[in-house]
Amino acid sequence: MERVPILKIGSVLLVSIQVDMQDQMALQLQEDLGQRIVDTGCKGVIIDITGLDIVDSFVGRTLSTIASISKVLDAETIVVGMRPAVAITLVELGLSLDGIRTALNVERGLELLTRNTEQDTIDDLYLLGDPETTSP
Amino acid sequence: MERVPILKIGSVLLVSIQVDMQDQMALQLQEDLGQRIVDTGCKGVIIDITGLDIVDSFVGRTLSTIASISKVLDAETIVVGMRPAVAITLVELGLSLDGIRTALNVERGLELLTRNTEQDTIDDLYLLGDPETTSP
Repeated sequence: MERVPILKIGSVLLVSIQVDMQDQMALQLQEDLGQRIVDTGCKGVIIDITGLDIVDSFVGRTLSTIASISKVLDAETIVVGMRPAVAITLVELGLSLDGIRTALNVERGLELLTRNTEQDTIDDLYLLGDPETTSP
Repeated sequence: MERVPILKIGSVLLVSIQVDMQDQMALQLQEDLGQRIVDTGCKGVIIDITGLDIVDSFVGRTLSTIASISKVLDAETIVVGMRPAVAITLVELGLSLDGIRTALNVERGLELLTRNTEQDTIDDLYLLGDPETTSP
């Protein structure tokens, strides 16, 4: 069975979906990705859908599920590379990608994730620090 | 016709090949990639073949051609993510990936390219600088 490769770039996992996913493939991807997040401790997942001509309700649901799984494993998911035609179809079909953040391309996605991680670190510092010295 | 997506990460283009390429798809990829190198001025190309179970002589030749095209466009190509089984088959078939550099995974590939680019910049500085002051 075909698997979608998961690439690790720094503390981000990159998944490029290029073929129309069937049920088994989607399940396998969810499983692989969850395992990979646990193994690597990555804080972000970027899913690139440049290669997809169509995002139907099944793919939309799969993306939502992946985002939810990642979230409970403490990783944020960003979907990137959506084609204009896909965006139009999504809106026309009334499909909303619940709980999914999007970005224009991989670079913007990486930027978003990096900024969030930095902000998290700052927040953590505030939480850890003495309230009297850290509060403004 | 299906196209292989080309992702830009910093000054590197990333291509993840996940399906067995046919003639037309390989030609299209070569064309797209060349155009993208020209458009972006990227100095490096990483081709990920994690998703390939088999690298036959056709794919091997395609990779070599891509590397050659990139080279004349002033970009270096690194093939990453080769499976052990693929490496074994390549050797058994007597196929050598001429002119292609390989790395274990995307991260190592990025490291290699970044190091090269830095070295290039240093070399350029030496070339541009006054020979008397720059030679040791």
